[in-house]
Amino acid sequence: MGKVEKKLQDMGIIIPDVPKPAASYIPAVQTGKLVYTSGQGSIKDGILVYKGKLGKDLTVEEGYEAAKISIINCLAILKGHLGSLDRVKRVVKLLGFVSSVPEFDQQPYVINGASDLLIKIFGEKGRHARSAVGTNILPFGTPVEIEMIVEVE
Amino acid sequence: MGKVEKKLQDMGIIIPDVPKPAASYIPAVQTGKLVYTSGQGSIKDGILVYKGKLGKDLTVEEGYEAAKISIINCLAILKGHLGSLDRVKRVVKLLGFVSSVPEFDQQPYVINGASDLLIKIFGEKGRHARSAVGTNILPFGTPVEIEMIVEVE
Amino acid sequence: MGKVEKKLQDMGIIIPDVPKPAASYIPAVQTGKLVYTSGQGSIKDGILVYKGKLGKDLTVEEGYEAAKISIINCLAILKGHLGSLDRVKRVVKLLGFVSSVPEFDQQPYVINGASDLLIKIFGEKGRHARSAVGTNILPFGTPVEIEMIVEVE
Repeated sequence: MGKVEKKLQDMGIIIPDVPKPAASYIPAVQTGKLVYTSGQGSIKDGILVYKGKLGKDLTVEEGYEAAKISIINCLAILKGHLGSLDRVKRVVKLLGFVSSVPEFDQQPYVINGASDLLIKIFGEKGRHARSAVGTNILPFGTPVEIEMIVEVE
Repeated sequence: MGKVEKKLQDMGIIIPDVPKPAASYIPAVQTGKLVYTSGQGSIKDGILVYKGKLGKDLTVEEGYEAAKISIINCLAILKGHLGSLDRVKRVVKLLGFVSSVPEFDQQPYVINGASDLLIKIFGEKGRHARSAVGTNILPFGTPVEIEMIVEVE
Repeated sequence: MGKVEKKLQDMGIIIPDVPKPAASYIPAVQTGKLVYTSGQGSIKDGILVYKGKLGKDLTVEEGYEAAKISIINCLAILKGHLGSLDRVKRVVKLLGFVSSVPEFDQQPYVINGASDLLIKIFGEKGRHARSAVGTNILPFGTPVEIEMIVEVE
């Protein structure tokens, strides 16, 4: 088991199997040293753990947990692609969408659920650029969708 | 005529002229081996073929067709930039926005209109990472907007 | 003072200090020759200069100014990262989100506030690929959020 996965295990986080794409695409593509993941929702074992919109169905704390699940799915994809998460040299960029009612404007605090986890497990190389935006609806009712770009060794 | 364009022609698809940007930007920029296209709507000959929102004005099938038109516009841009679509080495990434009422959550099935076409014409190298998200409104009422990153030879 | 900054000064634009991230991320990450900025809103000195949604609270002209402020924040980040804006070799890509009521579909004219400024100060190398989309809400009520990819020397 790699260092990063050991750290995740110590935090009680088990990397799931690679999430099955919901449609005609694949989980990740590498070009040069960059790996792009597909957008991931807050799904576990094929079921949405959180569903609905921030500002109506979910609190910021629940959104934070949903973002954590989304990024764990991104990590599962990376592990599937790279063999080991220790091969991640740098987390480059996140783009995070938060399903929101038109008045909810705390998206950054939701996407922190993903960013905080990355910094905890990768340290300095987990620090990334990021955009967090709201939207009126996301696929199948997921409250959060996150895509990720990483640089690999 | 290149192989990829021949395949498109056999499917009855003619690559249009490069869509004229609606504003102060250009259709594509290359950096190293990556080409980034600007976001494309479901426009043909300067006119929106489909207009409106999923869940109200358009069925999923119509949205699927709209996504197909958007990606054909991305291909037109690539052809304009590269000379031939045969120079595409790999489709890396799509980001697809679907104009949706707040209850419509089937965005992946809409953006499949783009993904399915890419796989049909490029085969394995057409398989890509992707995010599909909803939004409340897109420019000029287009139901779909798609941007694309490809790796070139 | 670099050439690009001199040009900005002649236009009456002073590059501010690097905007402090609102959450757990950093302003920019470089991988190879590409620099990715985090998404920037229309904030100046820690305060939102424009707030609200296009089609309700702001005119297109005000949105255009808001986009200008967002891209100046991106430039501040780049200056902080690169030392001098003269090291920008090419503006590659913008992704611009516009907080909009569901009927407002003039997002491209809003994001032009960013694109026009880039072309004015960088000339040919300021020409970029771009997507402009609407959304129902953005962080803390910013009307515009823009992220940027540039290639550096």
